[in-house]
Order: sequence, then C-alpha cells, then structure tokens
Amino acid sequence: MMLDQVVLLAAVTLLGLLEQAYFSLKVIYARRKYSVSPPAITGPPEFERIFRAQANCSEYFPIFVFSLWLAGVFFSQALAVFFGILYLYGRYLYFHGYAESSQGRLEPLYFSAKMQWVLIALSGLGVICTITQAYLGLDLLLSFTHV
Amino acid sequence: MMLDQVVLLAAVTLLGLLEQAYFSLKVIYARRKYSVSPPAITGPPEFERIFRAQANCSEYFPIFVFSLWLAGVFFSQALAVFFGILYLYGRYLYFHGYAESSQGRLEPLYFSAKMQWVLIALSGLGVICTITQAYLGLDLLLSFTHV
Amino acid sequence: MMLDQVVLLAAVTLLGLLEQAYFSLKVIYARRKYSVSPPAITGPPEFERIFRAQANCSEYFPIFVFSLWLAGVFFSQALAVFFGILYLYGRYLYFHGYAESSQGRLEPLYFSAKMQWVLIALSGLGVICTITQAYLGLDLLLSFTHV
Ligand SMILES: N[C@@H](CCC(=O)N[C@@H](CS)C(=O)NCC(=O)O)C(=O)O
Ligand SMILES: N[C@@H](CCC(=O)N[C@@H](CS)C(=O)NCC(=O)O)C(=O)O
Ligand SMILES: N[C@@H](CCC(=O)N[C@@H](CS)C(=O)NCC(=O)O)C(=O)O
Repeated sequence: MMLDQVVLLAAVTLLGLLEQAYFSLKVIYARRKYSVSPPAITGPPEFERIFRAQANCSEYFPIFVFSLWLAGVFFSQALAVFFGILYLYGRYLYFHGYAESSQGRLEPLYFSAKMQWVLIALSGLGVICTITQAYLGLDLLLSFTHV
Repeated sequence: MMLDQVVLLAAVTLLGLLEQAYFSLKVIYARRKYSVSPPAITGPPEFERIFRAQANCSEYFPIFVFSLWLAGVFFSQALAVFFGILYLYGRYLYFHGYAESSQGRLEPLYFSAKMQWVLIALSGLGVICTITQAYLGLDLLLSFTHV
Repeated sequence: MMLDQVVLLAAVTLLGLLEQAYFSLKVIYARRKYSVSPPAITGPPEFERIFRAQANCSEYFPIFVFSLWLAGVFFSQALAVFFGILYLYGRYLYFHGYAESSQGRLEPLYFSAKMQWVLIALSGLGVICTITQAYLGLDLLLSFTHV
C-alpha cells in the first residue's frame, strides 16, 4: 500500500473533518443566539433543530469515514472519492435544510443515505473479492477492482 | 502490510456498519410508531429506550472499530475477528434487550463490555510488543504475535 | 508503510480509548449517585454536566483519531503524537472542569480545540504535499515531511 493509493481518501476525510468543525461552530453560535447554556440541550425549536442536525451528522460521521476507506482501499479510490464528496455535499444540505425546518432535512437525508449505501455496497464488493482471491485464489473481478 | 492481512478486519467492520444501519432504521420506525417527530428526542419510554439504545451503540462504535483494528494489526487478525464478532453479537442483544426494558440491557451490556476490554487488552499487548521490538530490538513474544 | 512508522499513533489512540472508557465509567457512577436510571438523560445539573462532558468528548473522539492518523501518516508521526497527547490531556481537564461547573469547561475546551486545529492543519499540509508529489511530481517540503 503506497500513500498515493489512499491520499485522495485522506483528502475527502479532511474535507469531512472541516465540515464537522463547521457544524460545531454553528451549534456554538446557536447556543449564544438563543441563550441555551450548556449543559442544556433543549430550547426554542430553531435551536433544537440546529443542535440535532449537528448531532445526527456527528453520529454518522465515523460510519461514513469507515465505509469511505473500505470502499477506497478494497474496491476503488476514485469511486469512493466520488461518492464520498457527494455524501458530504448531501450532509451540508441536510444541515441547512434541518436548520430551516424539520421537513427541510428529508430530501438531502434521502440523498446522503443513498450515497452512504453506495459506499457500503462498494466496500462489500471489494471485501468479498479480496477474500475470494486471498482464500480461494479466485480473481472474481480480474483487474476491475483497484481501478 | 498486505490487504489479506486485514481483509477479515474489514469484513467485521462492514458487519458493524450494517448493524448500525439496522439500529438507525429501528429508530426511524419507532419515531413513526410513537409519533415522535424530529427534533424531539423525548416521548413514551418505549421510544426513549430504542432511541437511547441506538445512541449508546453509536457512541461506542468508533471505539470498537479502533480497538478491532489495533488488536488485529498489532496482535492477531484471527483473535480480533473472533472477539469483534462476539462484540457485535452482544450489541445486537443489547439493542433488543434495552428496547424491551431498561433492565434487559444489562446482561448483554456486561458481555459486550467484556469483549471490548479484551480487544483493548490485545491492542495494548500488540502495541507494547511492537514498540519494544522497534525501539529496543527486543522480540518479546517471538513469533507469537501476528498469528 | 511499516508498523513502526505508526506504532506511536497506535499508542496514542489506545490512550484515547482508555480515556473514553474512564469517562464512561464516570457517567455510570453519576447515574447511580444521582439516581438517574436509563433511558433518562436529564436530572440534577451535577449529573447533566457529567453526562454532557462525556457526550461531548465522545462526539469529537473519532474526529480526533482521524486527524491524529492523517497528520501522523502524511506529515510526521512525532508531531502528531506530541499534539495528540496534549489534546487528550486537554480533554481530561475539560471533563473534570465541566463536571465542576459549566464555566470550568471553557479554558480546557479552548486548549484542546487549539490542539485539534493543529492536527487538522498538519493533516492538510501532509495531504497537500503528498498530492503535489504524487500527481505533479513536485516535492514541496523535500524530506521535511515524514520526519
Ligand atoms: N438518531 C437518529 C437516528 C435515525 C435517523 O438518522 N433519523 C433521521 C430520519 S427521522 C433524522 O433525520 N433524524 C433527526 C435527528 O436525529 O434529529 C434519530 O434520532 O432520528
Ligand atoms: N452515555 C452512556 C454512558 C455510560 C454507559 O454506557 N452506560 C450504560 C450502563 S448505565 C448504558 O447502558 N447506558 C444507557 C444509555 O446510554 O441510555 C450513558 O448515558 O449511560
Ligand atoms: N454538541 C456540542 C457542539 C458544540 C460544542 O462542542 N460546544 C462546546 C462549547 S459551547 C461545549 O462545550 N458544549 C457543551 C456540551 O456539548 O454539552 C454542543 O451542544 O455544544
């Protein structure tokens, strides 16, 4: 494994870290704006939606990163990066949609959930092919994987 | 590091991703069944137990994955996979036990906590042996590690 | 990539796992002390501060580990380890400061946030240099990276 076979996965992960930091800052501003001092997590609906939007994105962030790397290392860096960027874009829309209204979170949620499932599916394909090759000596996808 | 030295760790991670997705879907169904619309996170105890069961599993999921990989890469892939699968099984029981009653979460919690500690202990052993070997030139466990 | 190029990152990660386990035990003790049985997450302010301190540290733990490894693999293991240990120390102070008073969380929070930003900055530098070298053949920092 050479570093340049994963450096684009690292770049997308970094983008995700910055996005999470941005969501956190938004919660901190919302705590000030709506006067919701820690440890409180309830307040006006506007605050609660921003709070939950960040909490929800944080909850799924490790899941996203793990699937990004599994898909990228075991299947294809290029495809993982492609769907990974779309996922992060979907989460950006989710955060702002949710901040505006509960309804507003739904469309971007469906979109980012789809991207998440694609990453999981690519991980599955890659892992199954690697196991088949390592333990049965069978190259299922020939040189198709590791594009 | 060859891919087949970690592909079973990847498979267990993938299993964990699917388990987390399953828990999330359960929360979404519970939100519908008990009419708890986001951003609310309180409602009937039945809902709150399912909500907290998923939240608790999500909180520990990165901790689990990190210890799985440390144990598998620095100590033994086979042992990490073995205890990793038991951990995920324990979390499955935890989720359903908690969904039924607060009491019902305890026994599977103790079980999965034990599996988690084993993974942390294996990580510790592997890391200490690798440091000793790399920095002191001492092979503590001879070829015992990296089984 | 040899194991000894990352074993110190593994050691800091392990330290973080132990710290998170310690925070969790503190919440379990606080649940007993203040009689806050799951699934409840509200109670006396003393309980809520401990609960939120652990929740907040858990939320950022994956972000910390990802940035630790990106910084350590793509930039410098030694620097990542240095700032990583400071981050974990800051989180220890954060937890205990928050447990005592909401105000008490602020100073250590600013400190650990700074360490977190340093890790993200090192990751960014390392990733950009690796991309430049891999795709443009340009060695920006010469042998400065991978110290
Ligand atoms: N923790 C989530 C788990 C399930 C989930 O991701 N739900 C989606 C669709 S209902 C969501 O947008 N939840 C809003 C939220 O977490 O505040 C929840 O409480 O709902
Ligand atoms: N976030 C957890 C941290 C400690 C923990 O894991 N507690 C166990 C044993 S009391 C649990 O099952 N907690 C239930 C929950 O998180 O809802 C909590 O609030 O309790
Ligand atoms: N989940 C966090 C996101 C932002 C954050 O990290 N806030 C800092 C500064 S206000 C904090 O210490 N929050 C306390 C807490 O999470 O309980 C929150 O609700 O505040």
